Amino acid sequence: MLVTDLIRRKRDGGELERNEIEFLINGYTSDAIPDYQMSAWLMAVVLRGMTRAELAALTESMLNSGQVLDFSELAAPKVDKHSTGGVGDKTSLVLAPVVAAAGLYVPMISGRGLGHTGGTLDKLESIPGFNVNLSAGDFRRVLEQCGASMIGQTAEIAPADKRVYALRDVTGTVESPYLICASIMSKKLAEGIDALVLDVKTGSGAFMKQEKDAVFLAELMVETGQRLGKRIVALITSMDQPLGSAVGNALEVAECLDVLKGKGPSDLRELCLVLSAWMFLLGKRVNALEEGRKLAEQMISSGTALEKFKEMVRLQGGNAAAIDDASLLPRAKYQADIASPASGFVTSMMVEQIGTAGVLLGGGRAKKEDSVDPAVGIMVHKKLGDKVAAGEALCTVHYNSAERFEQARPLIAGSYKIEAAAPEPGRPLVGRVIGEQPKAAVAT
Amino acid sequence: MLVTDLIRRKRDGGELERNEIEFLINGYTSDAIPDYQMSAWLMAVVLRGMTRAELAALTESMLNSGQVLDFSELAAPKVDKHSTGGVGDKTSLVLAPVVAAAGLYVPMISGRGLGHTGGTLDKLESIPGFNVNLSAGDFRRVLEQCGASMIGQTAEIAPADKRVYALRDVTGTVESPYLICASIMSKKLAEGIDALVLDVKTGSGAFMKQEKDAVFLAELMVETGQRLGKRIVALITSMDQPLGSAVGNALEVAECLDVLKGKGPSDLRELCLVLSAWMFLLGKRVNALEEGRKLAEQMISSGTALEKFKEMVRLQGGNAAAIDDASLLPRAKYQADIASPASGFVTSMMVEQIGTAGVLLGGGRAKKEDSVDPAVGIMVHKKLGDKVAAGEALCTVHYNSAERFEQARPLIAGSYKIEAAAPEPGRPLVGRVIGEQPKAAVAT
Repeated sequence: MLVTDLIRRKRDGGELERNEIEFLINGYTSDAIPDYQMSAWLMAVVLRGMTRAELAALTESMLNSGQVLDFSELAAPKVDKHSTGGVGDKTSLVLAPVVAAAGLYVPMISGRGLGHTGGTLDKLESIPGFNVNLSAGDFRRVLEQCGASMIGQTAEIAPADKRVYALRDVTGTVESPYLICASIMSKKLAEGIDALVLDVKTGSGAFMKQEKDAVFLAELMVETGQRLGKRIVALITSMDQPLGSAVGNALEVAECLDVLKGKGPSDLRELCLVLSAWMFLLGKRVNALEEGRKLAEQMISSGTALEKFKEMVRLQGGNAAAIDDASLLPRAKYQADIASPASGFVTSMMVEQIGTAGVLLGGGRAKKEDSVDPAVGIMVHKKLGDKVAAGEALCTVHYNSAERFEQARPLIAGSYKIEAAAPEPGRPLVGRVIGEQPKAAVAT
Repeated sequence: MLVTDLIRRKRDGGELERNEIEFLINGYTSDAIPDYQMSAWLMAVVLRGMTRAELAALTESMLNSGQVLDFSELAAPKVDKHSTGGVGDKTSLVLAPVVAAAGLYVPMISGRGLGHTGGTLDKLESIPGFNVNLSAGDFRRVLEQCGASMIGQTAEIAPADKRVYALRDVTGTVESPYLICASIMSKKLAEGIDALVLDVKTGSGAFMKQEKDAVFLAELMVETGQRLGKRIVALITSMDQPLGSAVGNALEVAECLDVLKGKGPSDLRELCLVLSAWMFLLGKRVNALEEGRKLAEQMISSGTALEKFKEMVRLQGGNAAAIDDASLLPRAKYQADIASPASGFVTSMMVEQIGTAGVLLGGGRAKKEDSVDPAVGIMVHKKLGDKVAAGEALCTVHYNSAERFEQARPLIAGSYKIEAAAPEPGRPLVGRVIGEQPKAAVAT
């Protein structure tokens, strides 16, 4: 098999066989195929795309390049959720305890902040003592004991994806739905899960600004998951405004605790209920979505989910007292309001700017090596359609450095569009559902 | 300037500025830009193409990566011809002496056989003692003294092209008219010429099987040459059958000597006259094509061109006696005819197969390191439209190894299509002319 033949076939829009894609990925991972051939092939993929069969083969080859966890000895189904990333997107911290509280297993391997979006690991680490770097054995023990464990990527999981991603990063080949799909799915399917709920975000705070791009990626991921034998569904959700109010690591943890205590912002609470319901449905814990939603509500109202979260925090070395008393979470030294320049209605928000402001405050990373300030962030008071008076606070910024605040302030202030007339209702929080439908699930 | 930004812009179909392309080529040549970034950019160019301005910038950057010869102190114009390659394509050996005999300078830097096509250097080296590896100083001295010199590529000429080509060869990025144009033109324009005639071949023996591809490449090369200040024209010529009768190094030299002696096959003679006429016209030696043709005929009929060739051979260390007596050229041990399997007319020829047969006989290289047997080859007796009787010889094969002959035989026999009815006349030997037109040239 000649690498140049495979590159040329893809370049000319042809299809590669499963074993040919395996040969490429294995060859690259074992240094038999050099970077310059892989990058030429990757660019051909970016510009020519892949068939669904090729994509499944690529995902499977990357998945099989490392350790694939196996929790089949655990009696209940293993389910997870993955989000493509947004601003204030913190549902994982609610979903894991809610779903585990109802008896399913949630082996969740998450990422760190990327660009303007936050990362689950950074949020968890704002809980004093919380350790996201468990060994595979400790991950398994926590999962067995309390039903949920949340850790970071290990070196053993999908090493081919790590190498390919590092190459994509420096060769202009990141922006391909096919390569994004293979990267996400190869890591998620290594978790040893039976079912996966995808939260694919679209809007000004998402990576996919256009809904059609979000739908396309969602379709790719759902079909890839199905081809690899998983129950899977994707929800297209709105990122036209931050999710909930809190943007920033400790602030977001506190907001999740509010939700787990039956309070919190209605949009965040709603999305958590919908996603939980789907996890219950795909995990065969319930037979209908509505039933799943009720089950999630019960787990919250009964306090079981909060207790589950506390248990997981304790098992992963975190200070469980902070779960009861959010004032034990890191707090920024200063707070300042961003006032509205005019009276009227919030008609649109440039959400990516708000995320970038959070990074500038120190809550995210400009470079991989940067450390993260857990305390800083933004509390968003006014959202789409809200009425606001001139001088009224749009947001409150939590910060530790006046200089950083001054960098972030114009981005936050400039992200709001205030107009005299109230806007038309925007895109719904949860839009299209792609993949397994409730009825089909009931039939199984 | 970030390399990834330049890769991404080309990937998305955007245009690079002249200084950005220069940055890429200089960076790659100086090892500041790694192979894997260059190959990703090259693949993006293959699939997205280039604007004419980008192509001129790429060509110029590669040209300026090395030595650019300067013969401006020589009073007469410097002209050259480049062919995209074919089977039996030997015009350079006629053109150089014909054009030099009429007082222009022909500083010709040629290549070796590539794939199924022959190379001028391999042909010249079948003349005992002929040295194609002159230093830049010796090249200049021969050129000054006799008006023509023919050598191989030097390490100093367009080193960026050498590096880029080596990378393209292993990354599936050879087949791009833009990259092919930049590669050819950067080397040709380093010769210090004022004018260039391009012989762009199309048909079953050419790299561009489709005429539209040949025309497109011709247009790119002509515009690139014009942008870089050269007088330039491209002729689309037929490679639906071998040019002349001889395919093989010494056999082709002997055939060129026939033409220089006023004999030889009519198609080879005709193409040499047309190309010479254009070289004279662009070199401002004549004011009209017809005048150029007559001048070429004179140079041949008077014996001046043959003397010029002898002088060049002598100056480059070759045995000039072989020019008068072609029996002093290498001769193969064996000859065998390929007989026609049927009576009828030759209606088509798979010319690439004949070229490949020549390589299999030992006359070309399967790998770069292979040495070439100057004596072997094929004398083609029957060409398109010729009437042939069953059992009559289509070709005579000159060979030194029975084993190689047996490999080559089926390719040669299988390349002929013999049918009962005479074919319609095919494409003319010389088709479209792209670039400078006779009238415009007269006006200058």
